[in-house]
Amino acid sequence: MEVLERCGYGFGFNLSEGLGVLDSSKVKRLFKPSLSWLLVFVPVAVALRFWSQPRNETALFVCSCLAVIPLAGWMGRATEELAERLGHGVGGLLNATFGNAAELIIALIALSKGLTGVVKASIAGSIIGNVLLVMGVSILGGGLRFREQRFNQTAARASATTLSLAAVALTIPTVFHVTAAGHSGGWSLETEQKLSLAIAFVLFVTYACLLSFELITHKQLYAIDSTDDSEVGKRAEGWSVFKSLLVLIVATSLVALMSEFLVGAVEAARSALGLTEVFVGVILIAVIGNAAEHSTAVMMAMKNKMGISIGIAVGSSLQIALFVAPVLVFSSYLFGRPMDLEFTLPEVVAVIVAVQLIFQISSDGETNWLEGVQLLSVYLILGILFFYLPERTEAG
Amino acid sequence: MEVLERCGYGFGFNLSEGLGVLDSSKVKRLFKPSLSWLLVFVPVAVALRFWSQPRNETALFVCSCLAVIPLAGWMGRATEELAERLGHGVGGLLNATFGNAAELIIALIALSKGLTGVVKASIAGSIIGNVLLVMGVSILGGGLRFREQRFNQTAARASATTLSLAAVALTIPTVFHVTAAGHSGGWSLETEQKLSLAIAFVLFVTYACLLSFELITHKQLYAIDSTDDSEVGKRAEGWSVFKSLLVLIVATSLVALMSEFLVGAVEAARSALGLTEVFVGVILIAVIGNAAEHSTAVMMAMKNKMGISIGIAVGSSLQIALFVAPVLVFSSYLFGRPMDLEFTLPEVVAVIVAVQLIFQISSDGETNWLEGVQLLSVYLILGILFFYLPERTEAG
Amino acid sequence: MEVLERCGYGFGFNLSEGLGVLDSSKVKRLFKPSLSWLLVFVPVAVALRFWSQPRNETALFVCSCLAVIPLAGWMGRATEELAERLGHGVGGLLNATFGNAAELIIALIALSKGLTGVVKASIAGSIIGNVLLVMGVSILGGGLRFREQRFNQTAARASATTLSLAAVALTIPTVFHVTAAGHSGGWSLETEQKLSLAIAFVLFVTYACLLSFELITHKQLYAIDSTDDSEVGKRAEGWSVFKSLLVLIVATSLVALMSEFLVGAVEAARSALGLTEVFVGVILIAVIGNAAEHSTAVMMAMKNKMGISIGIAVGSSLQIALFVAPVLVFSSYLFGRPMDLEFTLPEVVAVIVAVQLIFQISSDGETNWLEGVQLLSVYLILGILFFYLPERTEAG
Repeated sequence: MEVLERCGYGFGFNLSEGLGVLDSSKVKRLFKPSLSWLLVFVPVAVALRFWSQPRNETALFVCSCLAVIPLAGWMGRATEELAERLGHGVGGLLNATFGNAAELIIALIALSKGLTGVVKASIAGSIIGNVLLVMGVSILGGGLRFREQRFNQTAARASATTLSLAAVALTIPTVFHVTAAGHSGGWSLETEQKLSLAIAFVLFVTYACLLSFELITHKQLYAIDSTDDSEVGKRAEGWSVFKSLLVLIVATSLVALMSEFLVGAVEAARSALGLTEVFVGVILIAVIGNAAEHSTAVMMAMKNKMGISIGIAVGSSLQIALFVAPVLVFSSYLFGRPMDLEFTLPEVVAVIVAVQLIFQISSDGETNWLEGVQLLSVYLILGILFFYLPERTEAG
Repeated sequence: MEVLERCGYGFGFNLSEGLGVLDSSKVKRLFKPSLSWLLVFVPVAVALRFWSQPRNETALFVCSCLAVIPLAGWMGRATEELAERLGHGVGGLLNATFGNAAELIIALIALSKGLTGVVKASIAGSIIGNVLLVMGVSILGGGLRFREQRFNQTAARASATTLSLAAVALTIPTVFHVTAAGHSGGWSLETEQKLSLAIAFVLFVTYACLLSFELITHKQLYAIDSTDDSEVGKRAEGWSVFKSLLVLIVATSLVALMSEFLVGAVEAARSALGLTEVFVGVILIAVIGNAAEHSTAVMMAMKNKMGISIGIAVGSSLQIALFVAPVLVFSSYLFGRPMDLEFTLPEVVAVIVAVQLIFQISSDGETNWLEGVQLLSVYLILGILFFYLPERTEAG
Repeated sequence: MEVLERCGYGFGFNLSEGLGVLDSSKVKRLFKPSLSWLLVFVPVAVALRFWSQPRNETALFVCSCLAVIPLAGWMGRATEELAERLGHGVGGLLNATFGNAAELIIALIALSKGLTGVVKASIAGSIIGNVLLVMGVSILGGGLRFREQRFNQTAARASATTLSLAAVALTIPTVFHVTAAGHSGGWSLETEQKLSLAIAFVLFVTYACLLSFELITHKQLYAIDSTDDSEVGKRAEGWSVFKSLLVLIVATSLVALMSEFLVGAVEAARSALGLTEVFVGVILIAVIGNAAEHSTAVMMAMKNKMGISIGIAVGSSLQIALFVAPVLVFSSYLFGRPMDLEFTLPEVVAVIVAVQLIFQISSDGETNWLEGVQLLSVYLILGILFFYLPERTEAG
C-alpha cells in the first residue's frame, strides 16, 4: 500500500495492491513509450463514434479498448497520490476500493445494458488473468534474469487462502443450480438470486476483514519490501491533492466514456470477429482492464521484487472477487436487473484451477522460470477452451 | 490421547482426539455453568414425550437436542477416565472408538428408522462442522488474543492428508452413480452398495493404520504439548473404574433415550420449522453432536494450545469419516436396510472444500485470526447453500 | 538422469527419470531372480500365438503381459547405457524420450487397431499407478525400515506442480464436452479433436521446457543424491555403444511383438475374465507397463533414497502426461483415426485425486509409512471404482 514516486508527468501504474516504491526515472523512460501513447486512441475512438459514417463497430471496439489501458493507469496513479496525502489508513482504504475502478466502470455500464454474461465472464477472466497470465509473465520474466526469487510466505499464503475462499463462493451458486434442478422443488431464479445476494454479502464482509488484517492488525507483513528502499527520498515530488483529484475526475470520466463506446460496440464487434461472448469477457476485457497492473507486476519481478509482484497480481484478483463482484451484485438491483453469481462450468473450473496453482506455486516462498511457464501453459490451455466453446444459449 | 484431570464433580469434555491436559479448576468454573445446566432438558424432554397432550414435536426435538449436549460431554469424560485406568494403549483405543459415541448412537437410531438421508447428511455435516465451524471459531478466538499461534506441522499434515483420503472415499460412490447412469449396463443400487461396502472396509483398515501411527509408531508426535504441562500432578483426583463405568452406562442410556426422542420428532419438527432434511442433518445434528468437542477446542485455542485444538477438531472429523461412517454402513446390514456412501453433490463439494481449506491453513504450522474468519466465511456460505436447497425427492 | 552401473549381464531397470546410481552387485542378486526369469514367457507367448489350436486368448494375453515386464526393463537398461556414452545432454534427452517406450509401443499398436478407449484409460492408469501404487509401495516399504525419510523439496514441488498442470490439461476436454453439449452450437467431434490437438501441443512444449529446466538451467537440483555415491567407480563396466544398440533393437522388437499379441488378445481375454475395458486399461496395462520403474523405485526407497524414488515415480507420470499422451494424439492422425484427450469422469477424478495427494505428501519434504498406506488406500478405492464400473457404450 505504498505510494509510487515519479516525476509529475510520468505515467502512473495501478499499484493499489502493490507494496513497494518504484525508482521513478527508469520506470518513466522504460514504460512511458509503451503505454502512454495509447492515449491517442481516446480522440480516435471519439471520432469513430461520432463522425464515421457508416460506423465501424469493430474499429470503435478496438480503439476504445486500447484507450482504456492508459486511462486505467492514470486513475491508479491519481488514486495513489491521493492515498499518500490522506495517510496510511484512509489511503490504504482508498487504494483498496478504487484499485480496480476501471474494470468496475466497464462492468457497471455492461450491467446497465443487460450484458450479464459478459460481466460474469469478465469477473472470472480477471481472476484467472491476474493469477495465471500476469503472474506467469512476471515469474517467467523474473526467472530468466534470476535463478531463484524469494518472497514472504505468510503474506502470500494469506492471499492464496482468501482466493480459495473466493473460488468456493463463486462455485456454490453453480452447485446450487445443478443440484436444485434435479430436486422436487426445482430450481428457481429467485432463490438463485437470494443465494447469490447472501454470498455477495459474506464476501463483502470477508473483504472488510482482509483489509483490517492488511491495514491494521498485521500491516508489517505487507511493509517488508518498502522500508529499505532507497527511492523514498523522492516522495516530495508527489502530486498535490488538487492535481490528484483533477486527474482522477478527468481519467474516470474518460474511462466511463470509453467503456460506454466499448460496451456499445462489443456485440457487433464480436460477431464480426467471430468471437463468443464468454471469450470476449474472459480473455479480452479481462486483459484490457488489468493491463496497468500487468506492466507493473512484470517490472517488479524483473527487479527481483517478487513479493510486490505477487501482491499486485493476487491482490487484484482478490479485489475483483471480494469487492468488485459483490458491488456488481448489489448494483444490479439498482438497475432493476438482478445479477446472480452463477458461473458456467468452464468459468468455475478455470477459477479453481488458477487458485490451486497459485497456492502450489506461492506456498514455498520461491519461484523459478519453470513455474512461470507452467502458469502460462495453463492460461493458454484455458484460453483454447474458451475459444472453442460454442455460444451459450442462456446464462448458465 | 491424554487424560483430563478434573475434580470429581466437574463437567467432562470429549477429548478423545485431544492431546493435552486441562487445568481443571478454571475449566470447571468456566464451563460448568454453560453446559451442565443443559442437563435440565433431560427430564423436560421425558415430560414432553410422555405427558404432554397433544405432543409438541418441535419442543420435544429442541429439548432432546439440548439434552444430548451435556450427556455427550459426560460420556466423553467417563471414557477418558476409564482410558486412563486402562493404560496408554488400550485407553487410546477406547478413546478413539467411543470418542464420537453420541453421534454414533443418534445415527444408529436414525438408521433403524430408515432415515438414511439424515444420517449421511450428518456424516458430511460433522466433517465440515468440525473442520470449518469448530476450527474457525477456535482460530478466530485464539487469534484475537494472540498475534500468531504455532503448532506441530507434521501431526497436522498427517491428519489433513488422511482427511483428504476420506474426502476422496466419500466422493467415489457419487462419481460412480453419475458415470454408471450414463453407461449401457446402467446404475444399480446393488452395485452401489457393494462399492460402498468395499470402500467402508478400506476406510476402516486405514483407520486402524492411523491408530497404529498415533498410538504406537509415531506417538511422540502427538505427545509434545502434554509433557510440559504443570497440571499433571492432579491426576490422582481421577475417577475409579467403577465410577467411570457407572457414569458411562447411565450417560449412554440417556443419550440413547434422547436420541430416540430426537429422531422420532425430527420429521414433524423440521416441517414445522420449514427446514429441509439435508439442512437438519448437515447443520443442526452435526452441531449438536459436536458441541462438547467444540467448547474444548475453543478453550484450548484461547490458551494458545493450537496444536490440541486442531487435534480435537480434525481428529473428530477423521473419526467420523474413517470409523463412524464405516460402522454405520456395516450396521445398516444388521437392520436389513443397507446404507450406501453416496452423498449429494453439495455434500461432496462441502467436504472437499473443507478438507482443502484446512490443508491450506494447517500446512504452514501457524494461524492468525484472518484464517479463522476465512473458515467461518466458508461455513456460512455452505450453510446458506444448504438452507436454500429444496427438498430432495429421492436419496442421492 | 544418471546412468546405472551394473555388471554386463545384470538386469536393467528403467531409470530414465531416476537420479542416482545403484550399487550394482546387490541389485543384481536381489532383483535378477524376480524379473529376468519372466523372459521365459517370450517363447511361451510365441508358441501360444502360432501353434496352439484352438488358440487360448486369455493365456496368450497373460503370457505376453508377463513377457513385456522384463523386456521393458532391458529397453530401459540399454537406453541408459547408451545415454551414458552420449554424454549428459543428449543422454538425458534420450532417457527422457525413450523412458516409457514400452508403454508407447503398446499404446501405438492399440491405437492402430482403434482401441482408443483402452489407450486413454492406460494413460490415466499410468499416471495414477505411478503416483499412487508405485509411490505408495515405496513410501510404505521405506517407512517400515526408516522412521522418517527426507528428500529435496524444490525438485519434488516442481514435479508435483507440473503434474497439476497435466491434470488440468487432461480435464479440459471433458469440461468442454459437458459444457458444449448443453449449448446451442452443440458439441462436435471435430471441435473436440481440434481442442485436444491444441492442448497436446501445449503439453509437448511444456515438456520441452521441463527438460530444459532439469537438464540445463537447474540440473544441480536433480544431481544431489548421486554425487556422494560410492559406486561411481564401477562405471567402467558399462556396455559399449554397439552392445547397447543391439540390446535396444532386440528388446524393442520383442516388446513390439508381445504388444501385438497382447493387444490382439485383449478383447477376447477381458470378456473371458469378465473385466471392463476401462479396468484393463487403467489397472492391468498400466501396472505391466510400469513394472520396471516400480521395482527400482521401491528398491531406492528401501535404501533411504526417497528423492530418487519420487523422481522415478513422479517423473514417469510426467513423461506419460506431457510426452506420451501428446505423441499418441499426433500419431493417431497418421493412423487416420484421430484420438482426442477426452477422458471419462472417473479417469479425470482419479488423476486429480492422485495429483492432489502427491502434492500434499511431497510438499513437506519428508515421508513416513502412514503416507504410503494413504496412497495405497486411495489406489485401492479407485481400483474398486473401476472394477465395479459397467462397460461404457460410447467413448466419454
